[in-house]
Amino acid sequence: MIPMLMMMKVMAASGQEDAAGLEDLATEKEAEESHRQDSVNLLTFILLLTLTILTIWLFKHRRVRFLHETGLAMIYGLLVGVILRYGNPATSHHNRSPPSCSLAKGPARSSLLLNISGKFFEYTLKGEIDSRDIHNVEQNDMLRKVTFDPEVFFNILLPPIIFHAGYSLKKKHFFRNLGSILTYAFLGTAVSCFVIGNLMYGVVKLMQVVGQLSDKFYYTDCLFFGAIISATDPVTVLAIFNELHADGDLYALLFGESVMNDAVAIVLSSSIMAYQPRGANTHMFDASAFFKSVGVFLGIFSGSFMMGAATGVVTALVTKFTKLHCFPLLETGLFFLMSWSTFLLAEACGFTGVVSVLFCGITQAHYTYNNLSVESTKRTKQLFEVLHFLAENFIFSYMGLALFTFQNHIFSPIFITGAFVAIFLGRALNIYPLSFLLNLGRRHKIKGNFQHMMMFAGLRGAMAFALAIRDTATYARQMIFTTTLLIVFFTVWVFGGGTTPMLSWLHIRVGVDPDQDPQPSADTFQVLQGDAPRAEGQSKTKQESAWLFRMWYTFDHNYLKPILTHSGPPLASTLPGYCGPLASCLTSPRAYENQEQLRDPDRSDGDLSFTFGDAAIATNGLSGDCCGGTTGWNSNGKRGGSTSEEALERELDSREQELLSRGTRLVFPIEDPI
Amino acid sequence: MIPMLMMMKVMAASGQEDAAGLEDLATEKEAEESHRQDSVNLLTFILLLTLTILTIWLFKHRRVRFLHETGLAMIYGLLVGVILRYGNPATSHHNRSPPSCSLAKGPARSSLLLNISGKFFEYTLKGEIDSRDIHNVEQNDMLRKVTFDPEVFFNILLPPIIFHAGYSLKKKHFFRNLGSILTYAFLGTAVSCFVIGNLMYGVVKLMQVVGQLSDKFYYTDCLFFGAIISATDPVTVLAIFNELHADGDLYALLFGESVMNDAVAIVLSSSIMAYQPRGANTHMFDASAFFKSVGVFLGIFSGSFMMGAATGVVTALVTKFTKLHCFPLLETGLFFLMSWSTFLLAEACGFTGVVSVLFCGITQAHYTYNNLSVESTKRTKQLFEVLHFLAENFIFSYMGLALFTFQNHIFSPIFITGAFVAIFLGRALNIYPLSFLLNLGRRHKIKGNFQHMMMFAGLRGAMAFALAIRDTATYARQMIFTTTLLIVFFTVWVFGGGTTPMLSWLHIRVGVDPDQDPQPSADTFQVLQGDAPRAEGQSKTKQESAWLFRMWYTFDHNYLKPILTHSGPPLASTLPGYCGPLASCLTSPRAYENQEQLRDPDRSDGDLSFTFGDAAIATNGLSGDCCGGTTGWNSNGKRGGSTSEEALERELDSREQELLSRGTRLVFPIEDPI
Repeated sequence: MIPMLMMMKVMAASGQEDAAGLEDLATEKEAEESHRQDSVNLLTFILLLTLTILTIWLFKHRRVRFLHETGLAMIYGLLVGVILRYGNPATSHHNRSPPSCSLAKGPARSSLLLNISGKFFEYTLKGEIDSRDIHNVEQNDMLRKVTFDPEVFFNILLPPIIFHAGYSLKKKHFFRNLGSILTYAFLGTAVSCFVIGNLMYGVVKLMQVVGQLSDKFYYTDCLFFGAIISATDPVTVLAIFNELHADGDLYALLFGESVMNDAVAIVLSSSIMAYQPRGANTHMFDASAFFKSVGVFLGIFSGSFMMGAATGVVTALVTKFTKLHCFPLLETGLFFLMSWSTFLLAEACGFTGVVSVLFCGITQAHYTYNNLSVESTKRTKQLFEVLHFLAENFIFSYMGLALFTFQNHIFSPIFITGAFVAIFLGRALNIYPLSFLLNLGRRHKIKGNFQHMMMFAGLRGAMAFALAIRDTATYARQMIFTTTLLIVFFTVWVFGGGTTPMLSWLHIRVGVDPDQDPQPSADTFQVLQGDAPRAEGQSKTKQESAWLFRMWYTFDHNYLKPILTHSGPPLASTLPGYCGPLASCLTSPRAYENQEQLRDPDRSDGDLSFTFGDAAIATNGLSGDCCGGTTGWNSNGKRGGSTSEEALERELDSREQELLSRGTRLVFPIEDPI
Repeated sequence: MIPMLMMMKVMAASGQEDAAGLEDLATEKEAEESHRQDSVNLLTFILLLTLTILTIWLFKHRRVRFLHETGLAMIYGLLVGVILRYGNPATSHHNRSPPSCSLAKGPARSSLLLNISGKFFEYTLKGEIDSRDIHNVEQNDMLRKVTFDPEVFFNILLPPIIFHAGYSLKKKHFFRNLGSILTYAFLGTAVSCFVIGNLMYGVVKLMQVVGQLSDKFYYTDCLFFGAIISATDPVTVLAIFNELHADGDLYALLFGESVMNDAVAIVLSSSIMAYQPRGANTHMFDASAFFKSVGVFLGIFSGSFMMGAATGVVTALVTKFTKLHCFPLLETGLFFLMSWSTFLLAEACGFTGVVSVLFCGITQAHYTYNNLSVESTKRTKQLFEVLHFLAENFIFSYMGLALFTFQNHIFSPIFITGAFVAIFLGRALNIYPLSFLLNLGRRHKIKGNFQHMMMFAGLRGAMAFALAIRDTATYARQMIFTTTLLIVFFTVWVFGGGTTPMLSWLHIRVGVDPDQDPQPSADTFQVLQGDAPRAEGQSKTKQESAWLFRMWYTFDHNYLKPILTHSGPPLASTLPGYCGPLASCLTSPRAYENQEQLRDPDRSDGDLSFTFGDAAIATNGLSGDCCGGTTGWNSNGKRGGSTSEEALERELDSREQELLSRGTRLVFPIEDPI
């Protein structure tokens, strides 16, 4: 939130330029006035958020669950919007329209010099103004004041939200359901996008027939709407799940899907915008343009993914091979800067910063987190938690405000009705068929009530809004923006508010210990000891259904974790012999201690595989020598904290554990199926 | 740092406007290119900071103390500046100069409409450009790219730095030396400002004589320079003091002075800018204009102080009377928003946001901090610590960069030499005479070596830079900016680097336990028991020298603390009888428990006064009932943490303790001297 709110400040700042000169008092006064006005606007938002926080405290205090803070933020935003819109019918002395000047030929440049009686002023492009609006500039000046640059949402507000989502993904349930989550996110979003896009195209055609369409609305616009509205954001539902300790798998499915489909929706919408058929026959199907779009999708997605992962890996290496953990402030600073640089790096390379930030967050949680000092793990978690909280509530309260202060709303009842039907069908054709397919391969089936809950939890939120507000230049985009806004309002209030009744109506169990397996299987150690034929069979099934994931898992455990973190088996034991020197150079001294510990006969109990996992880290010796008396880095404390955290994740599943122990080829040298 | 760095992002964002229209591909491409360029620039800064962090870790790791992170950040900034300046002699395809258009009459407005073949584009004022520079726009385009709006420093980077300073002021040594600190800050800064201003006016006159001055340089400009360069920033020195545990009183004097004189310098410089004599005879002395300036100083300072204190008080009340501490995230969010709203509120009312933020920080530390949950106290501390760290290093690395990339440097050897002499004399005439005066009243004299150290620690830093870069429109201001930059470089590197040798050369003791008094006086409890005539005499001396402070202290302890926090004596015992209902309404239930505890005979040992201070808060009962199982608010933990923290501050001094116990009229009903 800091950044975003600061932003308006910046806009203010740019009004109060030094270069205006002390002499030119009129300009200075105006700049000062504008700065003051901007302060007031920003203050309005801050007070709104403060009010939201206080009210939500009251609700939480009284255990009221039908309204989430985001829903509340929207309501307060709406109220302020109404006041701004109708409370100030006569705007005061500000309504002089700005001076205008002409240039013979375009295009518009981002800078412009203005010569006023020999003095030169530099102006920067703010945007194109609809020629209809020029005459309204006077009346709308006040309303336009509270309007942010739409890119602010994308470049400043979304990154902390998305990073936090990625950074808090480190849950065993997430990895257990990774395949299903990716299926819902990629396949499901694509299905949803095309279903909604095509249905909306039908609606648009209908509107054309009945004469309700007053400007162009292309098929690509419909697809674009399908893409942006496919980004689900069940923040309300998840908050209630969290509070009531609902089923962990369902939580992971919903959270994972919503995080991933945000990324897919962003890239999908840019690919659709990149779909520009050549020649005069625009907006008709063109195979080469289509494949170009597909290429753009794959390119941007994989590029952004790689950027994010690379930055995460670099951070992990830096935190592993330096002793920055002795100085938590430096460590946190580095972590923050590196995570942010992902965004900039991706944007600078033409990829999508927000997607990069998501994968950077996941990588940071998976590797770097293990190298941080306890102090820093807490700091980073809390820092991003606060940023995420503020950014999210800011976006939602801005949404409320936008309903009344946005200048170019186009409310089309047919389009809106059609959109509601379309998103319902799109969601249904995403969840039910895919769940059926997934259940063919899953051992823990996604039950009917889970599917209904996922269907129900298809709320739309910050991402859909940010994508819709990014471009509101054309008629079609304005209609899309208005409709998106209404869909967000409706789903957050109605579906969000109905979560608790829905949970009980669907008989979804709550009050589950999140660290516990839904079916606590006693066969975990039997499998490890290799004496359970049933488990062997299960393992086969699992293997066939998710061999790719398992291969990755082995690779991650045997090579990536040891290289990037202080945990995992020593590389010398997993790498081929000729890599010896490299292995010993990359292996953390602590990893050897893990191994010693492992071979300690006292420790070879049922917990063996956990001990050999990332969990076992020496609490004494080598690692402690770097920290002076003043730094307060507590080696025991750190490892204590890390151990439980890690053990939780490591627990994953009995099959994965078996794989794990095979992969390492140290504990149970049975034949390797891969 | 988030905000500031984000800022450039914003500048980028505003280039990539939606309204440019999909059609206008050329504009869009340019906007995209500009966005990409901005990402690259910001990335440069982030990588710079990352490099700084890694290097400084290496230095800390090796216990190298001659270079502080801020000094290092400047060096890296310099290097990048050199590369940007000389590494790209031939700028590429970007050097088309912007189009220009004319308006017949001024003044320049903050918005401008541009009509390009029927399409309207909105432009915002970026600033005036020197007519000399118009022809350089092409060559300098690249350098100008990395230039931030100067208001960014003031509105985005300074607030977190200053707030953190205020928020971490809660030290017993600070309060013990409050009188001296305020004297140095107000009187000392004024002395320094006028000494430097007058000396520099002499230098300017000299330059005029020898023909080295090529444009106007008024007396007010000299005074302005005196004001901005009087803001000391001994961040390097304080870091070393902290690390070596140097004397607590000296630390408090230096830190307190530097924090306070920042506020004074800001307001002083705005008052000097407000000095605008009427009539033709400008820039000569005009009594009415002078008194107007003094009025402006007093008005802005007290207004900003009041805004800051008021926001702090409101936050304290909100955190006291709600049970927000059950939800640390909400609490931290509220704290952050309220603290930030101070800045905006002050700016909106025409006061100085940065000054408000400072006093808000102090108020928050003094009152609100006591109401927060342990979790939130840590979160808020750490949040602002990280922000402060990043912002500070960003400013310093920007300073390094600015030396080579700023376009309008005016290096005048005479002025620079004169300035170095002037700041030396100004500092000397601030420290030595005031120390002499203060020592007349102080029981713990400020010794000679302390005075020399304070003299030596007159480093200039972020505040001087931010004030200097704010206005670089005129010749005089450009020369001031260049000189300020050089002074910052010199003092940070030379004085900062020389701190450790200086400490040993001046025989200032290090390795002091910060919680311990320099002269641990055994008379603390004798005084409390009223049987020590010597202590009584001491108390009188103290009383005469600082009665104002003591009156405030009593008032604070008896009324403000009980009203605003959960600590202090119950109001019913300090307010007159007829205020009974009000008192019981305002008193926290915990305060009564404190009283019960106090009357518990088992507790009436030597620690009595501490028990009755803010330290004693019930660990059981009433306060614990609000928090559900999920929130993890640990009543015991909180009070445990709070107790030691509070006890530390409460320890203050034996005289204050005596006063305290008298003021409450509960423990020792001896005659009240007030």
